[in-house]
Amino acid sequence: MAIFYGIGIGPGDSELVTVKGSRLLQELDILYTPEAKKHAKSLALAISEPYLSKDLQIKQRHFPMVVDRESKEEKWKDIANEIISDVQHGYNVGFITLGDPMVYSTYSYLIELIGSQIDTQTIPGITSYNSMAASLGIPLVMDEESFAVLPATAEQDKLEAALQIHETLVIMKVANHLDVILPLLAKYDLLDKTYLVSKASTQEQTICHGLTGLSSNEKLSYFTTMLVKK
Amino acid sequence: MAIFYGIGIGPGDSELVTVKGSRLLQELDILYTPEAKKHAKSLALAISEPYLSKDLQIKQRHFPMVVDRESKEEKWKDIANEIISDVQHGYNVGFITLGDPMVYSTYSYLIELIGSQIDTQTIPGITSYNSMAASLGIPLVMDEESFAVLPATAEQDKLEAALQIHETLVIMKVANHLDVILPLLAKYDLLDKTYLVSKASTQEQTICHGLTGLSSNEKLSYFTTMLVKK
Repeated sequence: MAIFYGIGIGPGDSELVTVKGSRLLQELDILYTPEAKKHAKSLALAISEPYLSKDLQIKQRHFPMVVDRESKEEKWKDIANEIISDVQHGYNVGFITLGDPMVYSTYSYLIELIGSQIDTQTIPGITSYNSMAASLGIPLVMDEESFAVLPATAEQDKLEAALQIHETLVIMKVANHLDVILPLLAKYDLLDKTYLVSKASTQEQTICHGLTGLSSNEKLSYFTTMLVKK
Repeated sequence: MAIFYGIGIGPGDSELVTVKGSRLLQELDILYTPEAKKHAKSLALAISEPYLSKDLQIKQRHFPMVVDRESKEEKWKDIANEIISDVQHGYNVGFITLGDPMVYSTYSYLIELIGSQIDTQTIPGITSYNSMAASLGIPLVMDEESFAVLPATAEQDKLEAALQIHETLVIMKVANHLDVILPLLAKYDLLDKTYLVSKASTQEQTICHGLTGLSSNEKLSYFTTMLVKK
């Protein structure tokens, strides 16, 4: 029986794919890759490259991220139906996501649309922030501590409450939202306790510790994550 | 130059070790394993087993988890010094942790004690809750949502605040704390929206959805994690 596999390929370093993910990538007949942004596309494929078989058929598909939910969902339904058809024709089909498939990923929508029409299996992946913590040598949590993961686009009240409750905060997708996040960190005197990591685990990884001098106009990579460590 | 590697070996399935973790395990001269609980010891070693070389020297060490911080730290310092000495003698040394080394792991203390005396490198691992979400087919977070990770032993106020703020809550180490956690979930009408997973990703994995009928005396595995999905 053919299966649809959602494979988390981790933050960037091909060696941070799991053994299971790497094996399944090798065994796939067809691989769907998201093409939401040009650099996103090349990164996901580049990470998987060492594991892809010569005969693999790669189907790059555009997942629109527009605000108009209806036109977006229609497009995604088309892709879901194409995947269902491929699996029903006996092909093992994969879909790769950066980081983990269950953490802010398009894959969540795909499996919702696919439902129980075909067999699906999801393979977890290393998230950018787990990779960051490892590379910084800084624990996310110890003992009785807690941590939270939020997008920079979360409501201000929520961000503030989370900053007050948790010892560690991970803020995702900060690139275009420094104008909101930096004043918030300043308010709680946390600018100097914050790390900014771009392109975690890749050769282009950059780490910035202490954001007091950072301008909110600073151009950051789309793949930039913030770690606030109180 | 010899290096000390902290390797996250994931939640239980040997195939959920990263490619990098599996390669480093094969290349190690000496492997330290924690022996805090009898079943913890055998699980961590069993997960790593497929990757260990014949010549590997395994050093099982007891990390006391007692309340008396001083006597605990003294014991850990001894182990840290032993590791430093091994690395300074030219051996590549590893330490394995279940899940991720930066999420509630003894390893955090070890690298703090080791400091910059030798070269260290930390390899992230798949956490139990990322594995749970994948196996349940339930996203931890989408779009503007947020999630938090707390131990069941966190203060009641903190647990309540986190339940109010976040769409998803992961509560770790719930085994002996159902008497506190179940009433809290009942208060917010969340018993039916909670998943209980023991021994994630292993062949003995058990999943329980909806906790209304669960008694707070229920005997649970030490490796039980709760996922509250509002």
